[in-house]
Amino acid sequence: MKLGLIGAGRIGKLHGEIITYHVPQATIKTVSDVYTDGLEEWAQSLGIEKVTKDYREILDDSEIEGVIIASSTDTHADLIIESAKAKKHIFCEKPVDFNVEKIKEALDTVKQNGIKLQIGFNRRFDHNFSRVRELVDQKKVGDVHIVKITSRDPAPPPVEYIKVSGGLFLDMTIHDFDMARFLSGSEVEEVFAYGTNLVSDEIAAAGDIDTAIINLKFKNGALGVIDNSREAVYGYDQRVEVFGNKGVVTVDNDFPNSAVLSSADAVVSEKPQWFFLERYKMSYVDELNEFASALLEDREPSVVGNDGLQPVYIALAAKESLETGAPVKTSKFMK
Amino acid sequence: MKLGLIGAGRIGKLHGEIITYHVPQATIKTVSDVYTDGLEEWAQSLGIEKVTKDYREILDDSEIEGVIIASSTDTHADLIIESAKAKKHIFCEKPVDFNVEKIKEALDTVKQNGIKLQIGFNRRFDHNFSRVRELVDQKKVGDVHIVKITSRDPAPPPVEYIKVSGGLFLDMTIHDFDMARFLSGSEVEEVFAYGTNLVSDEIAAAGDIDTAIINLKFKNGALGVIDNSREAVYGYDQRVEVFGNKGVVTVDNDFPNSAVLSSADAVVSEKPQWFFLERYKMSYVDELNEFASALLEDREPSVVGNDGLQPVYIALAAKESLETGAPVKTSKFMK
Amino acid sequence: MKLGLIGAGRIGKLHGEIITYHVPQATIKTVSDVYTDGLEEWAQSLGIEKVTKDYREILDDSEIEGVIIASSTDTHADLIIESAKAKKHIFCEKPVDFNVEKIKEALDTVKQNGIKLQIGFNRRFDHNFSRVRELVDQKKVGDVHIVKITSRDPAPPPVEYIKVSGGLFLDMTIHDFDMARFLSGSEVEEVFAYGTNLVSDEIAAAGDIDTAIINLKFKNGALGVIDNSREAVYGYDQRVEVFGNKGVVTVDNDFPNSAVLSSADAVVSEKPQWFFLERYKMSYVDELNEFASALLEDREPSVVGNDGLQPVYIALAAKESLETGAPVKTSKFMK
Amino acid sequence: MKLGLIGAGRIGKLHGEIITYHVPQATIKTVSDVYTDGLEEWAQSLGIEKVTKDYREILDDSEIEGVIIASSTDTHADLIIESAKAKKHIFCEKPVDFNVEKIKEALDTVKQNGIKLQIGFNRRFDHNFSRVRELVDQKKVGDVHIVKITSRDPAPPPVEYIKVSGGLFLDMTIHDFDMARFLSGSEVEEVFAYGTNLVSDEIAAAGDIDTAIINLKFKNGALGVIDNSREAVYGYDQRVEVFGNKGVVTVDNDFPNSAVLSSADAVVSEKPQWFFLERYKMSYVDELNEFASALLEDREPSVVGNDGLQPVYIALAAKESLETGAPVKTSKFMK
Repeated sequence: MKLGLIGAGRIGKLHGEIITYHVPQATIKTVSDVYTDGLEEWAQSLGIEKVTKDYREILDDSEIEGVIIASSTDTHADLIIESAKAKKHIFCEKPVDFNVEKIKEALDTVKQNGIKLQIGFNRRFDHNFSRVRELVDQKKVGDVHIVKITSRDPAPPPVEYIKVSGGLFLDMTIHDFDMARFLSGSEVEEVFAYGTNLVSDEIAAAGDIDTAIINLKFKNGALGVIDNSREAVYGYDQRVEVFGNKGVVTVDNDFPNSAVLSSADAVVSEKPQWFFLERYKMSYVDELNEFASALLEDREPSVVGNDGLQPVYIALAAKESLETGAPVKTSKFMK
Repeated sequence: MKLGLIGAGRIGKLHGEIITYHVPQATIKTVSDVYTDGLEEWAQSLGIEKVTKDYREILDDSEIEGVIIASSTDTHADLIIESAKAKKHIFCEKPVDFNVEKIKEALDTVKQNGIKLQIGFNRRFDHNFSRVRELVDQKKVGDVHIVKITSRDPAPPPVEYIKVSGGLFLDMTIHDFDMARFLSGSEVEEVFAYGTNLVSDEIAAAGDIDTAIINLKFKNGALGVIDNSREAVYGYDQRVEVFGNKGVVTVDNDFPNSAVLSSADAVVSEKPQWFFLERYKMSYVDELNEFASALLEDREPSVVGNDGLQPVYIALAAKESLETGAPVKTSKFMK
Repeated sequence: MKLGLIGAGRIGKLHGEIITYHVPQATIKTVSDVYTDGLEEWAQSLGIEKVTKDYREILDDSEIEGVIIASSTDTHADLIIESAKAKKHIFCEKPVDFNVEKIKEALDTVKQNGIKLQIGFNRRFDHNFSRVRELVDQKKVGDVHIVKITSRDPAPPPVEYIKVSGGLFLDMTIHDFDMARFLSGSEVEEVFAYGTNLVSDEIAAAGDIDTAIINLKFKNGALGVIDNSREAVYGYDQRVEVFGNKGVVTVDNDFPNSAVLSSADAVVSEKPQWFFLERYKMSYVDELNEFASALLEDREPSVVGNDGLQPVYIALAAKESLETGAPVKTSKFMK
Repeated sequence: MKLGLIGAGRIGKLHGEIITYHVPQATIKTVSDVYTDGLEEWAQSLGIEKVTKDYREILDDSEIEGVIIASSTDTHADLIIESAKAKKHIFCEKPVDFNVEKIKEALDTVKQNGIKLQIGFNRRFDHNFSRVRELVDQKKVGDVHIVKITSRDPAPPPVEYIKVSGGLFLDMTIHDFDMARFLSGSEVEEVFAYGTNLVSDEIAAAGDIDTAIINLKFKNGALGVIDNSREAVYGYDQRVEVFGNKGVVTVDNDFPNSAVLSSADAVVSEKPQWFFLERYKMSYVDELNEFASALLEDREPSVVGNDGLQPVYIALAAKESLETGAPVKTSKFMK
C-alpha cells in the first residue's frame, strides 16, 4: 500500500521514518512540503520515490491510497476536505482545527466520500495508557468514579509558538481531554477551569496561561481532573489514574533505566524521560500500524473524526470557564 | 505532668493509651465520660487514678495541667471555653465545631486566658506528610505551584453517623483542607467543588455526597485539588503531591509489608493499610508528644487554634460551591 | 502472668519495655543485672517491683512463671539450665552458645524439666520475612529452588566487640542461617563460604572477616546464598528472595517514609532504616507476644530450642569451609 | 560502509534488520546461509543486494569492509580466522567457541591481520546494565565489594538444544560471566559452583544442570555470586547489584507497562518482559551501532576478542568445580 506524506517538519519526518521502518504493510511514495531544503536527501535515504512542493501531486496519484497530513494546523481542515474529495484515506495530526465549524465541514466531507479518517492522538497507543483503558474496559476497576490526569511538559515552548498555539487548552490539554474521554469511556458534559501564570511572564504577556487545574463532569456521572504545567523541571510528567467502585489503576512515568543508587547521602534514581519523542516513540509506531491495518482490513480506525471534534468542545468550554470563572457545559458549543 | 482525659470513646481511649505508653513526660490522672461501663477496668490497666462521669472534677483539680478533649464534636467548643477559664491547657480533637461563631468564641477565650490549645490534626505528624512539608519548607520543590491530595476512605461509615457528621466536607475533607494549608504554606482564598453520589444511595438519601473533587486557589497563587471517595475497596488511600518550579515531591500509601510475589499469573503485592488507626498510629503518638513538649517548654504547639478555624471556612465555601455550582471565596465566611 | 528479666543491657531493657507496654498478658516482676546503676529508676518507671543483682531471686520466686534471658552470651547456656531446673519457662536471646555440647546440655535440661524455651530469632516475626514464609508455606512459589539473603550492617561494631563475638558467622550470619532454615522449610546439609576483609583492617587484625558470600545446599535439594557485609553505608540492608517452580517472592528494606523528590538534578528518596532497633522494632514486640501466648496456651512457641542449635552447626561448617577452602557438611558437627 | 552477514537464522536476521533500520552508517550488501529457503524474499524486503550459500563470496568482495558472524557456534572460530585473513572486520556472536585453543588461534589471527573484532555480548549495551557500569566507573559505589547477578530464563530450551549447548555454564552463564567482569571491572580468579536439577528430568538425562549458584573471587579482591535457573515461570529475570564501600546500585527487570491495579483482592502489576528479544532489543541495536562506529572511527570496539575468551575460562572453572565439588582457579585453563 502506497501513502503520501503532506508536511515534512519534525513530526512529518517522524511519520515518514516510522512508515518506512516499522510499518511493513505500507510505504511512502511521495512527500510534499512547501520547504524542500534537504528534503530530497531525506527522502532518498528512506527510498521515497518523489519529492514535491505541491501536495496535489499526491492527491492526483491514483496509486496512492492514503495520506498522512502533518502540515501546520491551519491547513489540516482544508487538506482533509481535498483529500477526502480525492478519495484518499487520511491520517491527520491533531488538532484538526480550532474552529468547530471547519472541523464539522471536514468530517462531513469525509463521511460523504466514504473514506477513513484517523486522528493522531498517539497517546491512546502508549503502552501505559492503553493498558489502563484495557483494564477499564475489562471492568477491573468497576464503574468509573474518578479520572485523574497529570500532564506536565518539561519546558515551555518558545513564546512565538505559544502565540499561534490556540492557547494551553487547545494546544496541550487537548491531548488530556482526549485521554479523559478514552479512559472514562464517556463524553464530557461540563468543565470548570482554574488557570494561572506561575511559570513564565512571557506566556502571560502573550495572553496565555501556563498552569491549570481543569475539572470535568462526565455524562456517565464520573468526575475528572487534569492538572497541567508548562514546566516540570524533572522531565516530561505524564501519569493517569482511574478510580472506580472495584478498584483503582495507576501508571507511572517511563524512565531511561531502573538503576537505583543508594549511598550515604541518598537513594537516587533516574528522572523520567524528558522528550516527548522518546516518551511516546512506540505510540507513534503503533498508531501508524493501526492506520495501515484499518485500511488493509477495510474497517474504521480506532481513533476517528469525532475524536478530533469532541476535545475541541471541551477545550472551548474550559476556555470560557477560565474567562467567566464559572463551570461551562460543552453542549453550548455543539449545536 | 498530669493530664485529664475528657471523653473515652475509641479515640479517647487511644489517646489515653498513647499518653501512658508513649509519652514519658505526661500521665493521665483522671478520665471522665458520661458512659462509664468498663471504664474503671480500662483506667486501672493504665494506672489512671480516677474515673468520673463529671469532667468538672478534672477542671477543678489543681494538679492537672492540661486536658485532652475527645468527647463528641458538639461539646468541643464549650469544653474548650470551660477548660480555658479553668486555666487548663487543651488538646482538642478536630473539628472544633461546625459553627464559625462558636469556634471564634472558643479561640477568644483561649487567648484571654493565655493557655495553649492544640488541635488534633494528627496527619501533620504522619511520617510521609511531615516529610513532604519539610521538603517544601526547605524549598526543595521551589515555589509551590500545584498541591494534589488523594483522600479516600476504605468503606463508608454508617449512615447514622453520616447524618450527624456535618457532611463530607466538614467530616472527611476537613483533614484534607488542613493538609492543603499545611503543605502549601498558604491560606486558601477560593474553592470550587464538584460532588456526587456514586458510592451509596443511602448517603444520598441522607443528603450528603460520597465522591468529590475540590479545587483550591491559594493566597500565594498556587492551585490545589483534592479528590475524595467514601469507598476505596482496596484500602485507605492517602497520598499527596506538591509540585513547584524546582521539582515535585510525592508520597505513597503505607503497606503492611513489601513482599512482591511474581508467578505465571501476575505480580502481586500487598494492599495499603486498611484502617486509619493502623495507617496513622505513629502520627497519634507524635501529636501527643508535641502537646506534652509544648507545655513543658512553655511554647505554642505546632497546630494551634486558628488551624481549627481555617479549614471550617474552606469547608463552608466548598459546601456553598457545591450548592451554587460556582466558585466561592473563603473570605465570605470570615467577617 | 509474671516474668523475670535477667540482664538489663540495651536489649534487656528493650524486652522489659516491650513486655510492659506491648504484651498485655504479662508483666515483669523482677529484674536482675550485675550492674544496677540507674536500674532502680528504670524499673520504677515501668512499675517493675523488684531490682536485684542476683538472678537467683528470680528463679526462687514461685510467683514468676517465666524468665527472659538477655545477659551476655557466655551466660546463656548456664542460665537456661538453672532456669529449667527451677521450672521457669525461658525466652533466651540468641545465640544460645558457641559450643555445641553446651547447647545440647541446655536443651536436654529443658526437655527433662518439661518447660518451654523460645530462642530470640526476632526476624522470624518481622512483617516482611514472616509474609515471605507465609507465601512459601502456602506453596505460592511452589517447590523452593533458590533462597537468597542479603544481610548487611550499616556500620561495623567496635573491634572489642568483634573479638568476643565468635566471628562473623556466629555473630551476624547466625540470623541469616536461621532465616535460611525458616524460609526454605528445610535443614542445611552443606556449606561453602567465601570470606574476606574489605571493610576494616582492624577486623582483619582481630582475626575476623567483614565481607562474605555463603552458599547453602539444603536437605530438600534447594540451593541458597547469603551475602554479608559489616558496612553498608546507606543503611541496614536486609532483603530476602525465595524462588521456586511456581514463582518468586521478594521483599525490600523498610524506609522511614515514602517521599520521592524529583528535581532537575535527580529523583531522590529516603535511605533504608539505619538502626536495627528501628528496623526490627515490631518483630521484638511480636516475638514476646508469641512467648506470652505460648505460655498461656500451654503450647510450644514457634521458635524452639533446636532453632538455637541448628544455625550453630551451619556457622561451624561455614567457619571450617572458610579455613579449608572446601565445602563442609553440617553433619560433621552433629554427632 | 558495506557489511556481509554470515548466517541468517533468528539472530542473524535480527542483526540484518537492525543494520538496515537502525544503523544509518552501514548496510548489508550480501547475506550467506547454507539454508536459503525464503531468504531471497527476506533480503529483498531489506534491500540487501545479494543472497548466497557460500560465505566466501562475502570474504572475496573487496567492497565489503566487515562481516557479521551469526552462524552456528561450531563455525565461529574458523569463520573468524578466514575473515581475518580476508582483512574483514568482524562482529561475532557469542560464544566464540568452547575450546580455548581454538579461540586463541582465532584471536591470534585477528591480531596478526590488524583487524577489529567485536564479540556479541549485547547485554553490556543494555540500558540498565550499562548504567550500572557507568555508576561503578564513576566510583559512585566506591571500591567494589560484592557483585550479584540474577539470571533466569523464562523457560528451558528444547533438550535437543541443551545437548549441543556446551552445558549451562558455557551456554547461559557465559553471559553472566561476561557481566561479572564488566560490572566489577576485574578478572575472575577463582570459581565455586553449586549446580543441580530442579527444573527438568530431561535436562538431567542429557547430562546438564538447570539450577545453579556460582561464586566468584575477583582479582581485585571483590566477591561475586550468580544464580541461574532455566525456568522462571514469571518471565525473563535479569537483575544485577553492585555493592561497594560507598554504596550499592541495583537494577530491576523491564516491564511491558507500569500499570498497577489495586482492588479488594490484591495489588497487581505486570510480569517482566518474557522474551529475550523484547527484553534486550535496544541492546542489539546499540551493539551494532558500536561496531559500525568503531570501524568508521578506526578504533577498537568496546567488546574485544579477549572478552570472548575470559568468560570461557570462568565457565571451564565452574564446570570443573561442579564436577570436583571444590573451588577452581581460572588460571588453570590459561596456560
